[in-house]
Amino acid sequence: MTRPHGSAPIAEVLSIGDELLCGDTVNTNAAFLGQRARALGVVLTHVEVVRDREDEIVAAVRAAASRCDVLLVSGGLGPTTDDLTTAAVALAAGCPLVRDADAVARLEEKFRRFARVMPPANLKQAERPERAQWLDNPIGSAEGFWLELGGCAVFVMPGVPRELQRMQREQVEPRLRERLALRPVARRVYRLLGLGESAIAEKVEPIVDAARERSAALRQLFVHYRAAMPEVIVVLEGTARDGEGAGEDELSGFDAAMQQALAPALYGMGEADLPTRIVAAATRAGLRLCCAESCTGGAAAAGLASVPGASACLDGAIVAYDNRIKREQLGVDAALLEQHGAVSEPVARAMAEGALRSLRSDLAVAITGIAGPDGGTAEKPVGTVHVAVADRDGTRHLRLQLRGDRGTLQRAAASWAHKLLWDRLVERGVATLQWLAPSPLE
Amino acid sequence: MTRPHGSAPIAEVLSIGDELLCGDTVNTNAAFLGQRARALGVVLTHVEVVRDREDEIVAAVRAAASRCDVLLVSGGLGPTTDDLTTAAVALAAGCPLVRDADAVARLEEKFRRFARVMPPANLKQAERPERAQWLDNPIGSAEGFWLELGGCAVFVMPGVPRELQRMQREQVEPRLRERLALRPVARRVYRLLGLGESAIAEKVEPIVDAARERSAALRQLFVHYRAAMPEVIVVLEGTARDGEGAGEDELSGFDAAMQQALAPALYGMGEADLPTRIVAAATRAGLRLCCAESCTGGAAAAGLASVPGASACLDGAIVAYDNRIKREQLGVDAALLEQHGAVSEPVARAMAEGALRSLRSDLAVAITGIAGPDGGTAEKPVGTVHVAVADRDGTRHLRLQLRGDRGTLQRAAASWAHKLLWDRLVERGVATLQWLAPSPLE
Repeated sequence: MTRPHGSAPIAEVLSIGDELLCGDTVNTNAAFLGQRARALGVVLTHVEVVRDREDEIVAAVRAAASRCDVLLVSGGLGPTTDDLTTAAVALAAGCPLVRDADAVARLEEKFRRFARVMPPANLKQAERPERAQWLDNPIGSAEGFWLELGGCAVFVMPGVPRELQRMQREQVEPRLRERLALRPVARRVYRLLGLGESAIAEKVEPIVDAARERSAALRQLFVHYRAAMPEVIVVLEGTARDGEGAGEDELSGFDAAMQQALAPALYGMGEADLPTRIVAAATRAGLRLCCAESCTGGAAAAGLASVPGASACLDGAIVAYDNRIKREQLGVDAALLEQHGAVSEPVARAMAEGALRSLRSDLAVAITGIAGPDGGTAEKPVGTVHVAVADRDGTRHLRLQLRGDRGTLQRAAASWAHKLLWDRLVERGVATLQWLAPSPLE
Repeated sequence: MTRPHGSAPIAEVLSIGDELLCGDTVNTNAAFLGQRARALGVVLTHVEVVRDREDEIVAAVRAAASRCDVLLVSGGLGPTTDDLTTAAVALAAGCPLVRDADAVARLEEKFRRFARVMPPANLKQAERPERAQWLDNPIGSAEGFWLELGGCAVFVMPGVPRELQRMQREQVEPRLRERLALRPVARRVYRLLGLGESAIAEKVEPIVDAARERSAALRQLFVHYRAAMPEVIVVLEGTARDGEGAGEDELSGFDAAMQQALAPALYGMGEADLPTRIVAAATRAGLRLCCAESCTGGAAAAGLASVPGASACLDGAIVAYDNRIKREQLGVDAALLEQHGAVSEPVARAMAEGALRSLRSDLAVAITGIAGPDGGTAEKPVGTVHVAVADRDGTRHLRLQLRGDRGTLQRAAASWAHKLLWDRLVERGVATLQWLAPSPLE
């Protein structure tokens, strides 16, 4: 593979396994490797998935290696008869398979540590193509390996996502940094909830167009929009095909204009998601949070609890799926439920205020809605959702009309509840749009 | 593309879009199309993802069409400048692009329906390769299209998952059934929670080996194991490369042996997941359910609420993330918390019994554990989880030692709570292993 001087190295991903083709497993490894490649400054041009068939793997490895600088192969390193990757890569590289005595010893040691007897089938995992070098796997039996194939560095990793992720970070990337002149692409991420993709583009494109006029370094600025209902993430990238892209500093110059154009939907910049920001801000401010949930069934609280360290601010939640629980646990007046129905502004407000009272937190957010597929009416169709946030200073409410299937609506309603909570934290001066970005290479 | 008489048609998937390569979007469309292909009796041999570059799309379409009977293309049908799929497919097919007046009218009508003015850019979506035929898209602006390319039927669909899914079901599959002699592969699904993949394989392989000896039709029986922590799904398939596979009847003959070998981890057969089964069984029996959750933060209740019609049995939940909420809302004795710690058998039991009392349901399930990454000790490492289920007849408890990161542990703990609830329903005689399978083609 030859490429113009100064342009970014090219990578491909080759995923191996019938389970990826029969739809049993979603190929999350490809997405993970794509993110890592991007952060490293490697351009991923191609993902390919092939079956557990030796001849098909050999052909795919050869073809991919002839097109790129780095080939990331995953899957098929297990001990069973349908694990053919090692043998196929050896064939593609035209070198014999060898059993490595050191690798056998390491494998036996791993089984000893888990107090298990090693089945003979696992000996296969100590075989590698003769001129390959091992890649350590401290959390699984399948070590990876790498070798050169006509100028392409071929890295072979297990398909189990957490094993692959660790191997990519700890074994593959240091070797890539050593081997290639990498220039990570500068990237600026803006996170929004409450504006559609096209409405956002209408606001962002003029800002970007003006910048392209203004600066040579920004001419090849790349913008993309990633919709993750109901959120949209806008990414500015200093891509440069000729090696002259914009740097971090130039990109950060967009912040003010973006904030002005996109408020109040813009909730933050950088990689951290909404629950992470809420937990960070509430913890810093010493505020305790709780939820009162109907149609989301606990998803809003579970979203907050997914953040490490959530216990520093999360009290808990009352999931009042049934109206009786809304009355008994949240103190929602039976007359309100009767008069306005469970999916209504007064009930959403009463739920938030009830949770605040019952759980004695500082802020409470409530969600009630119609997630479908049944239960909609002309006046309150499926997707009608009321969210409310309450604190000592009062209660705010929002009526939403969301679209999608039941799962989509439940996720979107929970995200909107987080947004309302976030906005209240911003209003109280304890949260900002600040850049809260874990380093992409960590 | 020629293939031996009687063998299954070959399909490939070609997904187009930079967002799939930079890791912003996980390619769930490929998994969906893999499932559909399998159910239809089409063998998916290859998934490929390429960038939004016209020349790369043209090359990929041509190469794939030369290898298969059916090419399913997705993505790149939007109105923006980086949507290049239609033009590229026209180039690959060697026919001009035409703007279709009927398609323009349909597009304008769609915008009218959503009370929006059609931006001029969208006119692009009314263009198709001259000899292509449209595929209707009732829920989005991007219609699909299909054409023949040297014996391969090329179907082009939008990348938005719900639009693609509907188009595949309603537009693509009827045309495939018309065009190809399809013989769906018989498939039997066994669902387990509580046994590892290799332990399950040790029990299943002898059963399958014996059957292969016994019957010619079963000789090519295919078994695969799909681990979805903490569940494992075992799939038996009457695959036959020479067209002589086992049918539904022969596969159902395995049920008794599988039940005997895999109980008590086997919770059901067929496609329905654990929450769906719990909601169905509890509803039929007229039993009301609730949850008391600590480390899962509401995920167990949200899992039940994800099932359409959950309101027929789900009362709600108390998420007692903080110990104060465990005391105040669930009536857990402060002395218990003090003496045993929040993550302990007595507290799990008290939480389940407290929820039963507070929410007045028929069954309550409780979860308390250490989801990490911090908070573990030598005695109670991260992954220590206690679950308990309570009803009028008493309380059962299970201590688990789970592995994985925070998200994995929370999901696994919620699934184990569902399993405990399910086992109690089985014990009470209101749930069975019955085949609860939506038709795969519905």
